[in-house]
Amino acid sequence: MNMSIGQMPHGERNLITDVPGVKVGHETVDRDDCHTGVTVILPPQHNPFTEKLTAAAHVINGFGKTLGLIQVEELGTLETPIAITNTLNVGKVHDAMVSYMVDLCAKDGVKLTSVNPVVCECNDSRMSDIARRPVGEKEVFAAISHASDQFVQGAVGAGRGTTCYGMKGGIGSSSRLMEIDRKTYTMGVLVQSNYGSSGDFRDCCLPPDLAECDQGSIILIVATDLPLSHRQLKRVIKRTSVGMARIGSYIGHGSGEVAVGFTTAPVENCGDSFQCQMMLREDLMNIPFRAVGECAEEAILQSMWHAHADTALDGSHIPSLHEYIKEKALKEEK
Amino acid sequence: MNMSIGQMPHGERNLITDVPGVKVGHETVDRDDCHTGVTVILPPQHNPFTEKLTAAAHVINGFGKTLGLIQVEELGTLETPIAITNTLNVGKVHDAMVSYMVDLCAKDGVKLTSVNPVVCECNDSRMSDIARRPVGEKEVFAAISHASDQFVQGAVGAGRGTTCYGMKGGIGSSSRLMEIDRKTYTMGVLVQSNYGSSGDFRDCCLPPDLAECDQGSIILIVATDLPLSHRQLKRVIKRTSVGMARIGSYIGHGSGEVAVGFTTAPVENCGDSFQCQMMLREDLMNIPFRAVGECAEEAILQSMWHAHADTALDGSHIPSLHEYIKEKALKEEK
Amino acid sequence: MNMSIGQMPHGERNLITDVPGVKVGHETVDRDDCHTGVTVILPPQHNPFTEKLTAAAHVINGFGKTLGLIQVEELGTLETPIAITNTLNVGKVHDAMVSYMVDLCAKDGVKLTSVNPVVCECNDSRMSDIARRPVGEKEVFAAISHASDQFVQGAVGAGRGTTCYGMKGGIGSSSRLMEIDRKTYTMGVLVQSNYGSSGDFRDCCLPPDLAECDQGSIILIVATDLPLSHRQLKRVIKRTSVGMARIGSYIGHGSGEVAVGFTTAPVENCGDSFQCQMMLREDLMNIPFRAVGECAEEAILQSMWHAHADTALDGSHIPSLHEYIKEKALKEEK
Amino acid sequence: MNMSIGQMPHGERNLITDVPGVKVGHETVDRDDCHTGVTVILPPQHNPFTEKLTAAAHVINGFGKTLGLIQVEELGTLETPIAITNTLNVGKVHDAMVSYMVDLCAKDGVKLTSVNPVVCECNDSRMSDIARRPVGEKEVFAAISHASDQFVQGAVGAGRGTTCYGMKGGIGSSSRLMEIDRKTYTMGVLVQSNYGSSGDFRDCCLPPDLAECDQGSIILIVATDLPLSHRQLKRVIKRTSVGMARIGSYIGHGSGEVAVGFTTAPVENCGDSFQCQMMLREDLMNIPFRAVGECAEEAILQSMWHAHADTALDGSHIPSLHEYIKEKALKEEK
Repeated sequence: MNMSIGQMPHGERNLITDVPGVKVGHETVDRDDCHTGVTVILPPQHNPFTEKLTAAAHVINGFGKTLGLIQVEELGTLETPIAITNTLNVGKVHDAMVSYMVDLCAKDGVKLTSVNPVVCECNDSRMSDIARRPVGEKEVFAAISHASDQFVQGAVGAGRGTTCYGMKGGIGSSSRLMEIDRKTYTMGVLVQSNYGSSGDFRDCCLPPDLAECDQGSIILIVATDLPLSHRQLKRVIKRTSVGMARIGSYIGHGSGEVAVGFTTAPVENCGDSFQCQMMLREDLMNIPFRAVGECAEEAILQSMWHAHADTALDGSHIPSLHEYIKEKALKEEK
Repeated sequence: MNMSIGQMPHGERNLITDVPGVKVGHETVDRDDCHTGVTVILPPQHNPFTEKLTAAAHVINGFGKTLGLIQVEELGTLETPIAITNTLNVGKVHDAMVSYMVDLCAKDGVKLTSVNPVVCECNDSRMSDIARRPVGEKEVFAAISHASDQFVQGAVGAGRGTTCYGMKGGIGSSSRLMEIDRKTYTMGVLVQSNYGSSGDFRDCCLPPDLAECDQGSIILIVATDLPLSHRQLKRVIKRTSVGMARIGSYIGHGSGEVAVGFTTAPVENCGDSFQCQMMLREDLMNIPFRAVGECAEEAILQSMWHAHADTALDGSHIPSLHEYIKEKALKEEK
Repeated sequence: MNMSIGQMPHGERNLITDVPGVKVGHETVDRDDCHTGVTVILPPQHNPFTEKLTAAAHVINGFGKTLGLIQVEELGTLETPIAITNTLNVGKVHDAMVSYMVDLCAKDGVKLTSVNPVVCECNDSRMSDIARRPVGEKEVFAAISHASDQFVQGAVGAGRGTTCYGMKGGIGSSSRLMEIDRKTYTMGVLVQSNYGSSGDFRDCCLPPDLAECDQGSIILIVATDLPLSHRQLKRVIKRTSVGMARIGSYIGHGSGEVAVGFTTAPVENCGDSFQCQMMLREDLMNIPFRAVGECAEEAILQSMWHAHADTALDGSHIPSLHEYIKEKALKEEK
Repeated sequence: MNMSIGQMPHGERNLITDVPGVKVGHETVDRDDCHTGVTVILPPQHNPFTEKLTAAAHVINGFGKTLGLIQVEELGTLETPIAITNTLNVGKVHDAMVSYMVDLCAKDGVKLTSVNPVVCECNDSRMSDIARRPVGEKEVFAAISHASDQFVQGAVGAGRGTTCYGMKGGIGSSSRLMEIDRKTYTMGVLVQSNYGSSGDFRDCCLPPDLAECDQGSIILIVATDLPLSHRQLKRVIKRTSVGMARIGSYIGHGSGEVAVGFTTAPVENCGDSFQCQMMLREDLMNIPFRAVGECAEEAILQSMWHAHADTALDGSHIPSLHEYIKEKALKEEK
């Protein structure tokens, strides 16, 4: 989609995978009763358990079931890939991630006795009989094996069954480039969009129609190679809410809205007992703040742009953003 | 200003004082080196120390000096009027509020040995030699004595010297009506607006110009007569950030952004040792969420709409929103 | 155990099940490579999803994997029984709790499309090959079916393989009675104890030996029938840390320490759109504060008192508190 | 006092000023109606505004009026000395700290337009007519001018009028040495003790008498030269509560309990736009955790040990810890 959200240039692919080394993989489940799936975001580190990344989490609205945030906040680190699925599947995906990490560590000669998978979710029950929980170890391992710096957006993986502003939502992504000290850093966001009522969508100046209940959720994964401390990263990911508000969200009661972020910038050892963390000068934080806001806003729009119209389990039509725009144009012609 | 922000009807005055019993008073200080002042928000209760209100606070971005939030969060109550002034004046205004409360309690026969004033601030140093701190007991007492359900918006009181999106900001307010169980409740917001860069202002579809540093701050005071628990009120005031984002803020690093809210709905005694708190059914929370987002967005615009162009201490021109709109119209004619 | 911790009287059983209607069930897994299990705490409500309880959560130290706390904190409610198991089993137990709740709701004619199980854990890898994850749906359903107001303490269920202060730990519980307004309310705590180094144990005046690394974790479940708001309940469960500190903990880095609490006091409907919550007068909060501190301290000691000495997977001896006391007495005789 | 709290060696003076460069100054106000004062803790940096320190704050119980914590938590830095006084004096002391910082910066050629003083407090109304607020600019400047690496403990400065466990409290301090990578680092704590009921004091195995209401407060200032990030420092200062609990506190409702900490370890510039922060390896955090717990426990006991018996405004006797110990010894003889 050729959008001009904000002021900053985007990366080569305009995807979270513009952050060097970051990969994304999907596995989609399509059967009569379930249109769902899983999406994984892999950091560049071969084994994130042995090479932990600086990370942070922020709950915008906690009506959600995301797993694993307590430890991210206490230790400021991420030690697994991040998986996204639907609401009632999080336990099974958590268990699959434990299997994956036990295996990965075993290959590296590490006996794993503790690990903290981060598993996020949205509720796609409009298109899935969610109590079935069809996403297990096989699907998670498949998504990981598909991971690449190129990936499809829209109604795939964890975004297969989600809806956004009454239209078809899904997985969307965007990136921004930040020039600092003559080096180029990248900010990337990936969303699973599943929130907002049709009447609240602001494609800028349109007068909103009558609003329905704002349900569903949104997951916002933030990746960057900019050196940031845990505290700074937390400040950054809080700004994802800006992108949502601009498109029309008022952070609905029923919407589980969670942001998780990590930086791939390494923390160096320095002596036996200390580490050295590079971090941006605090008075320059507006650069990543602006970048993440633009990425979040555009990633949501991309998730809708790439999703085709679909049919809910109850037979109702779920329109696409393309249909919405066409219809609006028709109205304006009159 | 005749604006149509959102979908909900506003109250009679479209001010925070549409919440029954709430009053607002200003005292403005205008002298060669300082254009500043103080604004107070009084709850309906004659003595909020002896009749505490359910309250909550939320820090959107903590680069600010607001005083008194620790106790509001622990006990969930407000026990004084709320005062707003400029950044370096908060200590003096805090002390003045202690004097006011000691006197008020003495009149009521209560010997006060502890009280927790809430004092908020923005940095108006573009129009004030802020180290002078000209707002003291006299000014605070004057503002309280002026308090009324009618009050001026724009460059008055604590808004005398503030700037917003590179234009003149100030005090703004708005209200929304909520129909629940055949009763009408009111949500009101008052802001001291002092944030945002000129390039980031979104009067909807305008392409933003080059952005400068987003500095300054915003204080958002939320009042309602809707029965809410502390937890619910906290959820409500978090949604003030939605209004800001819609106008263009990305929550800048240097911007101290703080929301404080209270409900005037009483908590009843029930037996000697218990109280009874009425609270909205949780699944109806979208009603106040939508109301507070609309109020916050409109209150910010009102603060700019009512403020006239001015001159900074360094002689530079601070344009008004009126000038901005006129200029934009001229550009569009060409 | 006949202990005299604190000043308040304990309930009939001196167990969390002294809170009327609360039940606890264990299922223990004992096989060559795993000594572990699951413990469930059931609130009195037949279906906690349709009759939600006021609840709160507090993370003392977040090096842990407890699942489900985000929603408890946002909505202030618990909607499932609480399950406790070992660290890597949490995903499977989460999934089992989803199954349990889907079935329970189906029986009640409710189609469940979202539910938030709370699953807590400690790391029992000294006695379990923890990567095996032997606790699944069968074990969870068994624990629920065993639930009763009488239950065994010590090395059973989720406490089968845990160690505490270098001795055998496990499940422990204690209760206290609170007389308020001529009615008797009960506070109960159940712990899964797995923290502390041998040298740090304070059986009051003993000089501590050399300390080892404080690892492991502790889960503290708090139940009461005292009417409290979410905010008040959060204040109460924070005080569980007092009990731990008194026995010698300094809240070690590697120790995941999490408290979850609920009150069985109902929230009444009041009109179509509102609820009424009874809550203790804030100035009487010292009563539940003292009660929960005493309960937590005693529950930890009870968990050790009821656990017998055991052998770790590596063949090393895990002494019991009984052995420790005997040895200390012998030393003192000399 | 010759105490043997814990296992770690203390520094030369067993004071917070064992942290190199840290200084403490008091100014005591003794007049008929007020026995109060102010205590300041100065970091080694000549001007903390231009050389900010990594800092953190933690509210154990928020029934208190400490000012300035919002910014410490957002930016992770301290930019002024820390001042401690009584509850209703905090506004005046805040204003005095602004004056001090404006002057200090003016001398350094910096025009100050924003500064965030941290001002803590306890309620000494048993010995002060607290509404009088006798501590102003003169007293604050005097305390700063008295600052030294040697300072008196007990009933001086901000501790002049406080009471602790029903006995005379005051200012107390303690330090611990930490050997890491063949270098010695220091942890120091200073407290203003004003909490606890007489019946709750645990001089280890004494059976507690009947307990009264736990009121008052405690302020715990933590200083170290150990390189720690903001997140790590926050973890450290949370452990001050351990020291309190061990002496008998159950974190009473009416007790404002606040910890503020800073490290004097510098953050280095690295390029134009980045900084480098040295931080302890996370798995070694138990070293400062143990140190701060021991310091806090001992600092409280020192505050009582150095305070003499006194007379309250109402004529009642406030016993000293010395009297308590003597009386206990007499009882035991019988």
